[in-house]
Amino acid sequence: MKVSFVGIGLMNGSLSLDLQHLYPDAVMQGISRKEATLKRAFDLGLIHQTGDLHQLQDADWVFVSIPVEAIAHLLPQILDAVGEKTLVIDFGSTKSAICQAVKNHPKRDQFLAAHPIAGTEHSGPDAAVSELYKGKTIMLCETALTHDALLDRAEKLFGQLGMIIRRMDPVEHDKHIAYVSHLSHITSFMLGKTVLEKETDEQNIFDMAGSGFASTVRLAKSSPEMWMPIFAQNKQNVLETLDEYIRNMNAFKEKLAADAHEELLAEMKEINKIKTILEHK
Amino acid sequence: MKVSFVGIGLMNGSLSLDLQHLYPDAVMQGISRKEATLKRAFDLGLIHQTGDLHQLQDADWVFVSIPVEAIAHLLPQILDAVGEKTLVIDFGSTKSAICQAVKNHPKRDQFLAAHPIAGTEHSGPDAAVSELYKGKTIMLCETALTHDALLDRAEKLFGQLGMIIRRMDPVEHDKHIAYVSHLSHITSFMLGKTVLEKETDEQNIFDMAGSGFASTVRLAKSSPEMWMPIFAQNKQNVLETLDEYIRNMNAFKEKLAADAHEELLAEMKEINKIKTILEHK
Repeated sequence: MKVSFVGIGLMNGSLSLDLQHLYPDAVMQGISRKEATLKRAFDLGLIHQTGDLHQLQDADWVFVSIPVEAIAHLLPQILDAVGEKTLVIDFGSTKSAICQAVKNHPKRDQFLAAHPIAGTEHSGPDAAVSELYKGKTIMLCETALTHDALLDRAEKLFGQLGMIIRRMDPVEHDKHIAYVSHLSHITSFMLGKTVLEKETDEQNIFDMAGSGFASTVRLAKSSPEMWMPIFAQNKQNVLETLDEYIRNMNAFKEKLAADAHEELLAEMKEINKIKTILEHK
Repeated sequence: MKVSFVGIGLMNGSLSLDLQHLYPDAVMQGISRKEATLKRAFDLGLIHQTGDLHQLQDADWVFVSIPVEAIAHLLPQILDAVGEKTLVIDFGSTKSAICQAVKNHPKRDQFLAAHPIAGTEHSGPDAAVSELYKGKTIMLCETALTHDALLDRAEKLFGQLGMIIRRMDPVEHDKHIAYVSHLSHITSFMLGKTVLEKETDEQNIFDMAGSGFASTVRLAKSSPEMWMPIFAQNKQNVLETLDEYIRNMNAFKEKLAADAHEELLAEMKEINKIKTILEHK
């Protein structure tokens, strides 16, 4: 079995660790624009060989985990290069533009659009960890456009990784994910920005920031190279979430300014409901 | 040794566990308006006896961990009731109004204003955990107004709990803590609200919310009864953080709408700096 990884950082690196555990004889090929990334991935044992986008003919799997605008851009030429038995899967956090990019490709049925709801705020080969995907949901889009046998193969593999499969239309996916993922990255980045601008004495952040702040600002450590393209590609949905979030934030501010304590208390109690939803996970 | 706890939830409950470990013979007295809380604290072994605010004469320590407006309100009568050897310490997340409330009290030197930078999003006696305070910072305010011998006793105890002591003016404390703690609670509550309003199908939150969302929204599980009074008591500082945060959020939205990708990328890279500050902790 040969697995080609286009991009070999947190997502594909973690996947390689699990696949090597499942398939000890598999050959892992790494493809990246960055020499240093390939070298590091090799040293960490995430890949056995390097290659380029013209060397995909004999790959059983091609996993594409790079910034989403690069996925949309490169996917057609990746499909051009693959052999008959190859299945190409992308792990981008947006799905509409990516599906659109290969909509009319003659090998569309050798592609599966996927979004694993897994990750950490870290990036690069050193961020790779075993069992990143275990117990996590993977969203699959436009599964009817993927060849049945290849889709079966993919679903079997995701099952072996311990993932929970859910199917969703790419337009729906991008709308919902803007709320439950993209928005929280932006609120976190803006929290980091606001605190950094004000607390010019880093010692105060260091001393006074508790685990609550650390948790809320964690996503502000995420890779801008990965996340800026996600916001750009999902622009309309993200702008809508920002409008609603800012409206809620302004309303909260006005209530606080007006000493509307009972209203704020009732509102916060209502929001506490998120506890029940998340803790059932 | 007799320790009186005014309020016996997460903060005082956790403290009781550590104090019982350090001083196995100490008697722990619980005081609360809520019968059910006292009963539960007793059943969990957090307290040995119950009492009321008139039974503080023989206490060596009185720890006050209740909503901040209740601290400011009750602190004068708590000081009225204590004996000569008693030290009263509050654990409120705001310090100015609390210090102000006992400024001219004849027993002012038997009070120490403290804010341990420790906690979780959970509340009540069941939230109590051992070693909550270990390795955490405790901010002490107006230490010059506390009797030297009592201050020494407190600092020794905080040392035994493994805490790092830092002194700060209460007005400064409230200004900084608005940024590194109060703001993040509000951003988290508003994130929870925005998602709950939009995702009326809870299954979507359940399936699509990853660890990133869970981390960013974690503080929205916090007790409204504890947090609403904190925002109210630190109103001016909190409103200022909200203004700056909303300004940053609007600017981000406008840049995204205008496709100012290079600017957004540069901004996010700058914010990544929070990583270095937090990871040095």
